Amino acid sequence: MIKVGVVGGTGYTGVELLRLLAMHPDVELQVITSRSEKGTCVSDMFPNLRGHVDQKFSDPDVKTLSQCDLVFFATPNGVAMRMVPELLSHGVKIIDLAADFRLKSAEEWEHWYGVPHACPELLSEAVYGLPEFFRDEIKGASLVANPGCYPTSVQLGYAPLIKNGLIDAANLIADCKSGVSGAGRNSSVVNLLAECSESVKAYAVAGHRHKPEITQGLNTVSEGVSLVFVPHLMPMIRGIHSTLYATLLDSGSGSGSDLQTIFEQHYENEPFVDVMPQGAHPETRSVKGSNMCRIAIHRPNNGNTVVILSVIDNLLKGAAGQAIQNMNIVFGLGETKGLESIAILP
Amino acid sequence: MIKVGVVGGTGYTGVELLRLLAMHPDVELQVITSRSEKGTCVSDMFPNLRGHVDQKFSDPDVKTLSQCDLVFFATPNGVAMRMVPELLSHGVKIIDLAADFRLKSAEEWEHWYGVPHACPELLSEAVYGLPEFFRDEIKGASLVANPGCYPTSVQLGYAPLIKNGLIDAANLIADCKSGVSGAGRNSSVVNLLAECSESVKAYAVAGHRHKPEITQGLNTVSEGVSLVFVPHLMPMIRGIHSTLYATLLDSGSGSGSDLQTIFEQHYENEPFVDVMPQGAHPETRSVKGSNMCRIAIHRPNNGNTVVILSVIDNLLKGAAGQAIQNMNIVFGLGETKGLESIAILP
Amino acid sequence: MIKVGVVGGTGYTGVELLRLLAMHPDVELQVITSRSEKGTCVSDMFPNLRGHVDQKFSDPDVKTLSQCDLVFFATPNGVAMRMVPELLSHGVKIIDLAADFRLKSAEEWEHWYGVPHACPELLSEAVYGLPEFFRDEIKGASLVANPGCYPTSVQLGYAPLIKNGLIDAANLIADCKSGVSGAGRNSSVVNLLAECSESVKAYAVAGHRHKPEITQGLNTVSEGVSLVFVPHLMPMIRGIHSTLYATLLDSGSGSGSDLQTIFEQHYENEPFVDVMPQGAHPETRSVKGSNMCRIAIHRPNNGNTVVILSVIDNLLKGAAGQAIQNMNIVFGLGETKGLESIAILP
Amino acid sequence: MIKVGVVGGTGYTGVELLRLLAMHPDVELQVITSRSEKGTCVSDMFPNLRGHVDQKFSDPDVKTLSQCDLVFFATPNGVAMRMVPELLSHGVKIIDLAADFRLKSAEEWEHWYGVPHACPELLSEAVYGLPEFFRDEIKGASLVANPGCYPTSVQLGYAPLIKNGLIDAANLIADCKSGVSGAGRNSSVVNLLAECSESVKAYAVAGHRHKPEITQGLNTVSEGVSLVFVPHLMPMIRGIHSTLYATLLDSGSGSGSDLQTIFEQHYENEPFVDVMPQGAHPETRSVKGSNMCRIAIHRPNNGNTVVILSVIDNLLKGAAGQAIQNMNIVFGLGETKGLESIAILP
Repeated sequence: MIKVGVVGGTGYTGVELLRLLAMHPDVELQVITSRSEKGTCVSDMFPNLRGHVDQKFSDPDVKTLSQCDLVFFATPNGVAMRMVPELLSHGVKIIDLAADFRLKSAEEWEHWYGVPHACPELLSEAVYGLPEFFRDEIKGASLVANPGCYPTSVQLGYAPLIKNGLIDAANLIADCKSGVSGAGRNSSVVNLLAECSESVKAYAVAGHRHKPEITQGLNTVSEGVSLVFVPHLMPMIRGIHSTLYATLLDSGSGSGSDLQTIFEQHYENEPFVDVMPQGAHPETRSVKGSNMCRIAIHRPNNGNTVVILSVIDNLLKGAAGQAIQNMNIVFGLGETKGLESIAILP
Repeated sequence: MIKVGVVGGTGYTGVELLRLLAMHPDVELQVITSRSEKGTCVSDMFPNLRGHVDQKFSDPDVKTLSQCDLVFFATPNGVAMRMVPELLSHGVKIIDLAADFRLKSAEEWEHWYGVPHACPELLSEAVYGLPEFFRDEIKGASLVANPGCYPTSVQLGYAPLIKNGLIDAANLIADCKSGVSGAGRNSSVVNLLAECSESVKAYAVAGHRHKPEITQGLNTVSEGVSLVFVPHLMPMIRGIHSTLYATLLDSGSGSGSDLQTIFEQHYENEPFVDVMPQGAHPETRSVKGSNMCRIAIHRPNNGNTVVILSVIDNLLKGAAGQAIQNMNIVFGLGETKGLESIAILP
Repeated sequence: MIKVGVVGGTGYTGVELLRLLAMHPDVELQVITSRSEKGTCVSDMFPNLRGHVDQKFSDPDVKTLSQCDLVFFATPNGVAMRMVPELLSHGVKIIDLAADFRLKSAEEWEHWYGVPHACPELLSEAVYGLPEFFRDEIKGASLVANPGCYPTSVQLGYAPLIKNGLIDAANLIADCKSGVSGAGRNSSVVNLLAECSESVKAYAVAGHRHKPEITQGLNTVSEGVSLVFVPHLMPMIRGIHSTLYATLLDSGSGSGSDLQTIFEQHYENEPFVDVMPQGAHPETRSVKGSNMCRIAIHRPNNGNTVVILSVIDNLLKGAAGQAIQNMNIVFGLGETKGLESIAILP
Repeated sequence: MIKVGVVGGTGYTGVELLRLLAMHPDVELQVITSRSEKGTCVSDMFPNLRGHVDQKFSDPDVKTLSQCDLVFFATPNGVAMRMVPELLSHGVKIIDLAADFRLKSAEEWEHWYGVPHACPELLSEAVYGLPEFFRDEIKGASLVANPGCYPTSVQLGYAPLIKNGLIDAANLIADCKSGVSGAGRNSSVVNLLAECSESVKAYAVAGHRHKPEITQGLNTVSEGVSLVFVPHLMPMIRGIHSTLYATLLDSGSGSGSDLQTIFEQHYENEPFVDVMPQGAHPETRSVKGSNMCRIAIHRPNNGNTVVILSVIDNLLKGAAGQAIQNMNIVFGLGETKGLESIAILP
């Protein structure tokens, strides 16, 4: 049994992580911390966990956490980086669901997150936990930076085309739609049901923190990636739908069925990427509650522009599910363990 | 492995049943029938099942179905009763998720469902599959009538009070709120998102088919039950919230905490009934995707009226989940097998 | 032109009031105050008002407000009572959309709202602004207490039966369902879309502030009213659906059609109460954006229990619309002026 | 008073048109037809119209319709073209809310709508009813082809840039998001709340009927337009959000503020186009129930790609509202008459 601690269990990635950990056969949940909710029963805050998680939230304490084999951080950005070095020194493995270790450049991190990085020396050591890109590196990792939700869906959608040199990587357009759980469980007016239900809007068109993460990731596949990234808020709880546009470099080379084959081959051994049949339109609900990413590829009118549709559950493959997948890889378990749940439909 | 057939797998109880069966460790899914969708891949209709259910819908055929150990009917009302007698004669166990075998009186059945019953002689043999009421009878049953969604939440809410003779069973008021998946996956204008989103309405106030089912069930607990039942349509997919009103017979006898104790004792060994702490307000989302029924009891101002709040997922404890629970009981498996999933929140 | 001021325009009743005032032909909007948003353009906060309301929020200032003919308070409970006496002394008419002047008893007010009342001497002078009950009193009023949303729908639903002495007023059950805009535009976790979408729950079963208001109002129709009131939160923005239960005193006297006639006669001259045809199930969407209350009456199985269904838009007839209706009455305008908008469907 | 007939009043554009007509001061509603609902009270089908529209649906009859000054067609595609020639011969003005007269080429019409056009000779005579493009032509028109919902939002968004020759019109990408009322009030499984709530999907990526309409319209502004158009279904009732991408031809020429000025000047006299302040993110709810189109323009990172955000209510500016606007222009009324309603928020 892997002894697991969770730091910051009061948000949506936190409760989803606890749900998955409670159902995982090889995990023993040791400690769940929350500075603000110390002493509260976890299942009083999240009644879905009644009968499954009977701990109380405790103060985050390095000594207690050091007795875990693995600590997940489901904290706001900037928290993990202040505790991780000491935990690593005690031999604890770390999976950070926040953004603290996603970017390789401390300068870029400071630019986007507004404070200096607390342990820039760890940025190169941290492995970016997108298994479809870095499975081998994750295997031996002590510190895994779990990817963001948008970046997961966008990188998985573009990767086969970029890897095969088929598109102009310098002119990518990612139009992404997310449910509001992506904004977190924070008291705020803008995410009230009465504000964001029955409405759609774009946000952060001028710049979003997930853009450098996407660019950095895709640049490991091929150089020169440049992206226009426009996130939108959807009137729903869960799900991301990324609509990805790219220009084919050689319009004669790739027919629609060729592209389909390239995707199918690229992902044929991936347990959590499902290339849909040609012409399909994946719905976000087809992955609700599951760790799958479903992708379809289109080439309208056989023109120069390819359109890739990529859907995930932002709290599973976009957060807690991928974190479990990374845990499974780090500890040499079957990669799908504890992640076999089928998406709930309707 | 139990060899299972599903007749009528194209509705919401059907897809939920298939999802649960696909994750059940002791089940081998042999055949899934649909007259209208014969030849269609099940996972083309329900993409959440991609990679988990690879069968095609086939014509319902008694010969094939007879080779199953168990056949579930997830058909419209009135279909099962025409096939069940022959299947029973082949030794196949039956769990009917429709209403064909729920009422004991053929006359009443005809009154509410509009056609004569095809096999009234089986009505007394059929066991009403509410495990909290009839667990022992289900154990040896060949034919289980899986309860309706509203009746499940209402009967579980009233039972402890009626059994203990605390309320006036002749004056019950059940104000029930259901998500629209309860209306089924049928093309209809009234259940379009543009019709029933951002709106609430009562329906069938003059009379609803679930009322005689509730009355019949509660009358097995104590005689003389009479009920006003008002169902409402909620702008959401899943979930039933039953708000149950009753008058205490002896207003001096039962304080709030006494009532709490009565509920806790009544359900202390039930794996799928969770009596919430005193003063709680269960949310339907706390059971979304799980087979739990969560109940809270209130006595406002210490007055004569008790208010019971009972929530279920209409597709789980109100349909497919309870059907799996019944299967587990019939075949002597652990009652919670395949039903361990924790509710999804948010 | 009536010179109007609005104190506290940043909530949902505030923005709805501003929308209605901006479309009212006899109103000149002089000043809109908000302590927290001083200097902000109203239409920057509420972009629907762009081109219609060009003022900025200003500090609430008695001198400026004193130059208005009428001041609306759309503030949190407890604010109006500290400014109203001085405004009244300057001859300004007041319509308070909060609860400060709804209850006649200062003790009861303090019990439910947690602070002593600042001007208890005004409670008897204030007129309860439910025009269907107190139209004549509103005509000459200086201070109108605009009713709460639940109380409006409940009182309009019960009034004809109580007035005609047909039901046992001491045993009323009001099961009410409200959209989340009723909870206001406050940053809070519980009203996030990700918390209250796709879910239904009861709340405040032990006691809700609107209960004494309902009881007080119905007691002006007939003595001895006692009520069990259970509010529920619906996953939608606007709308209240009250399902009202009552016991007929003489079960032989009133057939369904008699009751229908009683309602139709009671409301035949009311511009904003629509008695639906017998057997109807009013939907909240049928009043979305309009000041109508639609009511239907049922007597299931011709039994002792009558069921009244009453729907309003909580922000119109339940708040800002009724406030405009009161303004029209106070100033002798046509009662429907500025309230002619037809409900938006779908 | 303009005597108006409505053919096909049972869909969402129909009921919205009736709502607007009932509130229009210069309109007398003469006849509302529906073959399938003949004899039904309009307000029984659409209870929001109770007290405002008291007609019954009648059979569509040319003789009766010929006595109108104006007939609106709110019918499925392919119906209007079979009645319009005869009505025109009687001097009746026509505004068709369907697609029958939107395309100038009969061949293209047949390609996209699957049947030969019934009166191709009228296609050149019909005026495309986008007032911001063709106000002068609409003034004298007998036959107005009311634009589609997506085409309205897309054309208004791109027009200023194309007119000023600033972008590469041959490489446009329109990523559009629509509420489900755009799919009409037809019984269908795919638009059930339980199917399309809590989910997002793209559809018709291979080709959508609105694409040739957009291309034809923008080609009247400047030649050589080519478009990738990807519509998406949103889990909400009303609203279209078009996210429009284009490449600047001269990346040095237009700073963000220049582009802002170009948009503001282009639309400065338009009553129903609101250019939002620089950096804004218009929400669809800011136009819910109003005839406004709100537009914001972005140039992320001062790069080559401009992003235009354009929102409308698909049933108002995208259908019935624009039809009223066209009526006002055709009959020389004030263009905003009957369209002054402010958007409902929340």
